[in-house]
Amino acid sequence: MTTRNVLWIMCDQLRFDYLSCYGHPHLRTPNIDALAARGVRFTRAYVQSPVCGASRMSYYTGRYMRSHGANWNGFPLRIGEPTLGDHLAKLGVRNVLVGKTQMQPDTEGMRRLGIDPGSSLGVQIAECGFEPYERDDGLNPDQAPRVPYDDYLRVQGFDAANPWQQWANAADGPDGKLLSGWLLEHADKPARVPEQHSETPYMTRRAMQFIGEAELDGRPWCLHLSYIKPHWPYIVPQPYHAMYDAAHIVPPVRSQQERRDPHPVYAAFMAARVSRNFSRDQVRQRVIPAYMGLIKQIDDQIGVLMRFLAERELLNSTMIAFTSDHGDYLGDHWLGEKDLFHDCSAKVPLIVVDPSPEADPTRGTVSEALVEAIDLAPSFIRYFHGEPKSHVLEGRALQPLLHAETGVDWRRYVFSEYDYAMMSARRTLGTPVDASRLFMVFDGRWKYIHAVGFRPMLYDLQTDPEELHDCGADPACDAECGRLKDALLAWSLRDHNRITMPDARIAAYTEASQLESGFVIGFWDQAELDAARQP
Amino acid sequence: MTTRNVLWIMCDQLRFDYLSCYGHPHLRTPNIDALAARGVRFTRAYVQSPVCGASRMSYYTGRYMRSHGANWNGFPLRIGEPTLGDHLAKLGVRNVLVGKTQMQPDTEGMRRLGIDPGSSLGVQIAECGFEPYERDDGLNPDQAPRVPYDDYLRVQGFDAANPWQQWANAADGPDGKLLSGWLLEHADKPARVPEQHSETPYMTRRAMQFIGEAELDGRPWCLHLSYIKPHWPYIVPQPYHAMYDAAHIVPPVRSQQERRDPHPVYAAFMAARVSRNFSRDQVRQRVIPAYMGLIKQIDDQIGVLMRFLAERELLNSTMIAFTSDHGDYLGDHWLGEKDLFHDCSAKVPLIVVDPSPEADPTRGTVSEALVEAIDLAPSFIRYFHGEPKSHVLEGRALQPLLHAETGVDWRRYVFSEYDYAMMSARRTLGTPVDASRLFMVFDGRWKYIHAVGFRPMLYDLQTDPEELHDCGADPACDAECGRLKDALLAWSLRDHNRITMPDARIAAYTEASQLESGFVIGFWDQAELDAARQP
Repeated sequence: MTTRNVLWIMCDQLRFDYLSCYGHPHLRTPNIDALAARGVRFTRAYVQSPVCGASRMSYYTGRYMRSHGANWNGFPLRIGEPTLGDHLAKLGVRNVLVGKTQMQPDTEGMRRLGIDPGSSLGVQIAECGFEPYERDDGLNPDQAPRVPYDDYLRVQGFDAANPWQQWANAADGPDGKLLSGWLLEHADKPARVPEQHSETPYMTRRAMQFIGEAELDGRPWCLHLSYIKPHWPYIVPQPYHAMYDAAHIVPPVRSQQERRDPHPVYAAFMAARVSRNFSRDQVRQRVIPAYMGLIKQIDDQIGVLMRFLAERELLNSTMIAFTSDHGDYLGDHWLGEKDLFHDCSAKVPLIVVDPSPEADPTRGTVSEALVEAIDLAPSFIRYFHGEPKSHVLEGRALQPLLHAETGVDWRRYVFSEYDYAMMSARRTLGTPVDASRLFMVFDGRWKYIHAVGFRPMLYDLQTDPEELHDCGADPACDAECGRLKDALLAWSLRDHNRITMPDARIAAYTEASQLESGFVIGFWDQAELDAARQP
Repeated sequence: MTTRNVLWIMCDQLRFDYLSCYGHPHLRTPNIDALAARGVRFTRAYVQSPVCGASRMSYYTGRYMRSHGANWNGFPLRIGEPTLGDHLAKLGVRNVLVGKTQMQPDTEGMRRLGIDPGSSLGVQIAECGFEPYERDDGLNPDQAPRVPYDDYLRVQGFDAANPWQQWANAADGPDGKLLSGWLLEHADKPARVPEQHSETPYMTRRAMQFIGEAELDGRPWCLHLSYIKPHWPYIVPQPYHAMYDAAHIVPPVRSQQERRDPHPVYAAFMAARVSRNFSRDQVRQRVIPAYMGLIKQIDDQIGVLMRFLAERELLNSTMIAFTSDHGDYLGDHWLGEKDLFHDCSAKVPLIVVDPSPEADPTRGTVSEALVEAIDLAPSFIRYFHGEPKSHVLEGRALQPLLHAETGVDWRRYVFSEYDYAMMSARRTLGTPVDASRLFMVFDGRWKYIHAVGFRPMLYDLQTDPEELHDCGADPACDAECGRLKDALLAWSLRDHNRITMPDARIAAYTEASQLESGFVIGFWDQAELDAARQP
């Protein structure tokens, strides 16, 4: 049997609708579209939290945010939280990282359990269960730990105290002045770094290097190629910086009505600096062409990577997943960044190419099934012939959908969470740190958002697909709100921590097993006991 | 300053109302009453799950069952779950065990993290953060690992293959036959072991040995003296076996109405063997006098222990807590054992003696505050001048109540959970393993029980203090049910796993800290950035 592998490509902050296969009218992404033609394109895939850190910890553990507890960027993943790497290791599969995870290790927990962060186990824990072939979270200001990419740039002759900041994240200004890529006004300028040495091609090459070495190694692998882009800083090298202009910008999805009497939490997010800036046409016109250029570059690199896999004859044995950790408002709904649950933020592109013959019937098809980011980890485990542990992994393997199995009883709701305690919105609203929480329940039509301490928000995506009308305060929607609140309660009451006891062991427990272990509970006399012991 | 210590006495399966200070009409418990006279007696203390293992893991972690995930007896406590011992160690306090914990170590998790179960750290983890001076879970059938008490009995001349089973848990029958203490019909007979060598005095002596040794050691300690009794097997040595008879038995709290159209989950528990047996007067009359004798013996031993502490002049520096891990139906409500949420099961006695002068105003008083078992761990930490971490410990230190502080904003609801997947009730009902769950919300008057997949149960303890009338199906109670369901939702949506990030660090995070770390998000140009950087 051929060795099976998984190539799991993740973009960062890539909206679901900025790919041609997802309907963008001007951005052509033929290489990603080709993946969709070979696999299943999911149109209702949601992340478990629309922010990098929390979303990724859900992807990497297969568990909801409330289960892994790493609620936001920089919140360490608690020690002992089982990761995809732990599950794959049991199957003899290497779980390898090239790129970003935003993992923050639980050093206090490691100390408590006497684990040396420098040991190979310590590194694996610190890297969220990945073997870090190349770890780079992509945001490397002076204060951040240095990354190998810095050294790479230096070797190529791009020397500087902080090569990332001064070459990859800067443009040339007049009089030899550097223009910072952190500032939105510079998004139309080319990054100083030549394209072939920018981050996306660099990471693609690192992935190919790994794949080449892994061929010699022989063990199966799951490679997480985790591109930093099109996440800000919005700056891209030439020629990508000039490929798109105002004519290619999709108009913002927003209405004046949204600003009249909005939900208080929504209002607080609209009041944030990034939202105010992205609500200005000037900002959108400067930034969106760069955002599109960054995506186009990724698409080109995926073309390089696919040709590489084809040459090595790996396409028939490699499951390929392409997705993102969340979207980007880009001024839609008068918002910038991500964080809330409109589709452009909480919904992501997801394409899965399963090379198995069982998946032949679904090639090139579109699935509207309600899919969660946590479904990928169990799907990979299943691809490697493992059995995902349902008491640990809260997602569902996608194979029944990929293989067009009949009679599949799929989930009826997707859930997503957001902890805004670290955001300016918390200060605007004056909400307590432990009560600054939002929860999304979406049933395919109604999107209900439970806001702790406030009324809910509600959108009917059937009549209002652009999510411009929040009917959470409309008494006519009370019944929908009640139904979805009940679904939220049912979900939140589910076990999130019973990770040491599998369902099967519980199901097998009977009075007979109790008696076998010597425990005699509630029997009156020997006769009653003897009767119970009869087979 | 005198070294402070904590003596934390726990009984197992002791109902709240089988002590004279809690109103039992026939059972005199003067030594426990004396504790109440010196401290605060709580009349609304509830456990987080009415079953040994789950309740104890909540006591030992200060966290709800849904947080620690050890839902039932024998479910391992997940590796990395912080325990009281972890918190006390940071304060230089020894956390010491004499008796029962029912801790099951997460050996799979230990393997995953490379922790040797034989190392001192491994032992501490395996013992739930305790230094096991004497570990004995009290149920020692032939199949169980042997305990030091076995050797003790042998040294005293009570030799046998299983001394616990053959001496402590057996009575002499006719013709030299052993009568098993596991069987209820033998509860009226004296255990074969002489009283001074039975488990309760043995554990008391072990506690005193520890205290004596600790005096030489000098470090402060928290000693968990965890009696196995009055948990079944219901058998007690003489003279305690004959102290009580039918005249001393409180009539059962039950009504025929309870058996007419009961809630399906309640019905399934009534149908269990132990419930059917305890619904027979013969069983109650045989068992309850033994149960009372076991309690009387504990009370006498607490007298021994208190005299020991007084002689050593430790009473003025030692906080003493006396409680239980859950109650015992004893035939009330047509039920045996514990598991459901009637007061005789989910409510426990709780007496806290705080020797600090600040507690002088409350000595001998009664508190009706809504108290949870998870409040003890933070109370102990506070007694040792520590600051309980609110993002880890979900209980609240009791000191504001013990010190009669004014303006205390105490909790308005207590919560308890039950996972009945391991019970015969699950088979009776045919509920899925992961949906066999009950949740109690009690506000001091209304006790609401959310039963996944069924209608709720509801009791009004103001008009129905004996909990004989379930009004959960009465439309007149819909508003109460709705209000309490909302409280349940709010509770279940709270963070249960954000244990790596303290509230204070989150509260301190601002745009300024973001800029200091080099992240520039959403700024248009340098002027805007400079303005934000102005102090």
